[in-house]
Amino acid sequence: MPRQPISQRALIGAVEGTLADFLASQIASLDTVDPALGGFARTARDLVMAGGKRIRPTFAYWGWRGIAGSSEPVEHVLPALGALELMHTFALVHDDLMDGSATRRGRPTAHRLFAAHHGDRFGESAAILVGDLCLVWADQLLARTPLPAPILLDVRARYDRMRIEAIAGQYLDVLGETDPRSWSVDRALLVARHKTASYTVQWPLGFGLALAGGDTRLEEAYRIYGLAVGEAFQLRDDLLGVYGDPAVTGKPAADDLRTGKPTTLMMLAIEMASPSQRDELSQPLDLAGAVNPAEGSGELNGIARRARIIADTGAPARVEEMIRARVSEGVAAISEAPIRPDARTALVELATTATQRPA
Amino acid sequence: MPRQPISQRALIGAVEGTLADFLASQIASLDTVDPALGGFARTARDLVMAGGKRIRPTFAYWGWRGIAGSSEPVEHVLPALGALELMHTFALVHDDLMDGSATRRGRPTAHRLFAAHHGDRFGESAAILVGDLCLVWADQLLARTPLPAPILLDVRARYDRMRIEAIAGQYLDVLGETDPRSWSVDRALLVARHKTASYTVQWPLGFGLALAGGDTRLEEAYRIYGLAVGEAFQLRDDLLGVYGDPAVTGKPAADDLRTGKPTTLMMLAIEMASPSQRDELSQPLDLAGAVNPAEGSGELNGIARRARIIADTGAPARVEEMIRARVSEGVAAISEAPIRPDARTALVELATTATQRPA
Repeated sequence: MPRQPISQRALIGAVEGTLADFLASQIASLDTVDPALGGFARTARDLVMAGGKRIRPTFAYWGWRGIAGSSEPVEHVLPALGALELMHTFALVHDDLMDGSATRRGRPTAHRLFAAHHGDRFGESAAILVGDLCLVWADQLLARTPLPAPILLDVRARYDRMRIEAIAGQYLDVLGETDPRSWSVDRALLVARHKTASYTVQWPLGFGLALAGGDTRLEEAYRIYGLAVGEAFQLRDDLLGVYGDPAVTGKPAADDLRTGKPTTLMMLAIEMASPSQRDELSQPLDLAGAVNPAEGSGELNGIARRARIIADTGAPARVEEMIRARVSEGVAAISEAPIRPDARTALVELATTATQRPA
Repeated sequence: MPRQPISQRALIGAVEGTLADFLASQIASLDTVDPALGGFARTARDLVMAGGKRIRPTFAYWGWRGIAGSSEPVEHVLPALGALELMHTFALVHDDLMDGSATRRGRPTAHRLFAAHHGDRFGESAAILVGDLCLVWADQLLARTPLPAPILLDVRARYDRMRIEAIAGQYLDVLGETDPRSWSVDRALLVARHKTASYTVQWPLGFGLALAGGDTRLEEAYRIYGLAVGEAFQLRDDLLGVYGDPAVTGKPAADDLRTGKPTTLMMLAIEMASPSQRDELSQPLDLAGAVNPAEGSGELNGIARRARIIADTGAPARVEEMIRARVSEGVAAISEAPIRPDARTALVELATTATQRPA
């Protein structure tokens, strides 16, 4: 393992190697209790290892590297970085169950995998448990981080606050979907801040900073950068949720329209719509015959028509502006911060790649 | 707070006071983010504070007091004892959702409470999240335990193993209910060991021991006592699940028969049944018109008839024997252990009260 900052590919390889080793030992130990438990654990492992952008370990790595000396080996923080990814699998598995999503990263979601064995009800129960398992595994892997106890306790305190915010954000998300008429741009942004910004960027950065022993001069820069870039990340997600290519996102086309999620994009569209547009946007979407908005030859289906109306309101262009403004704010905060130059370069780059991504 | 061992009532009062203070601060902080989050947190608090036997903090207290000096104030361990109860609320909320249980402790379960606001689907999602919230709260409260970091890290390591075993046991439980024909007495006992014995008695005792700094001479005695008394606790639960008084248990009458749970009692009944009894026991239960097995005046309904057949096989008497044998084994282990006399007396008493309980 190089002691200099490593490439994104090498970092992901190292985190995934740490995860694979940890999970192999957990599977072996559950296998000895009962083969059914080994199978349960293997399904969990496959969900963890199924890929994804590993964006939280990446931000945590750079948050750490921002002040960690160049002689500090990355091995000291790999278990903690891996723990973030285990916690993320917990969040994805439970979220997919709540959203009733059938696929994730182009593969069946946890509750669908288990349902294939013993039916839908078993699928739902097993998905709850596989999420719970990943959350506890995260704590176990975090505990293997070879750093002094006071540092680990500070890391844990931040990790706990991150988890509370992620759960609170998800509750608001579920509530908004249940009752979209009570929603607003402000509340959609609050969800973006809690569910995504703090959980995807702000806390991983702070978690990394704590792994390096903390530095009060960097706290504020990371906080500003984290919230700004994190919100931009979610706003990109809103756009992908309507206009993303399912072959690239791994999710059904226009997933947010199908579920009626009151995203910032949707709330803005309603705010900016003409009376007749607003009228149409507030109708429940007719999903009969809906396949793919890209297939709009001949008569437009309901989903493609709705995506078109949203575009006509000007909301997507406004969201693109909001993304640009936030990326600028984040880049400015990190540019002036007392941070190692390689970490500054990486975070400036990440501000763009994380918010201009196709999936 | 007295420095001598305290009464069960005072102990529960102290644990509940710690929980109430902690939860009040968490609610206040979520309230400032969004009132809906405050409401969400208040529902979680009500579930935590709804009562229950507080059996895990009790075993952890005596596990600690077994070696802790009499000058050691209980305040030092109250946050850790409270954390066990928060974790237990997590387990109950998720288990009740998986089992589709409508009531717990005579009150609506979490998913039913939330469903009353926005429908069943919202109820299920919110229940998953309220369980997740309690699990993270448990970690936060545990972190407030004012003990040296090395002790806390050992406590956490045991806590993590306890959580893994509880989740694994619940997975086997769900699997068994889905596929009862593949089940056996051995597998039912394995579930009892993982889901209940280790989680309810063995690990709480070990958790308490770790809070006191550990003592290798007591490890084995606590392990034997914990598994024996814990299994007996679950076997009593099996009997209550068929013959318990719903007015006392707070659950529907003969709940295990309704859900078809393959408990040790059920598996033994099938093993001990005559061919014609076995034939009837392997039929799906006709729940039409089933109300309460106690109401058997006139024609016996399906549930009461099944409960009677199980009794006729001799399985309940065999289970009573198994309980007695395990209680004796646990009492013997603790009687010979190098433990403070007041803790020995309390654990000997608990071995009986926890396994002879009416609810």
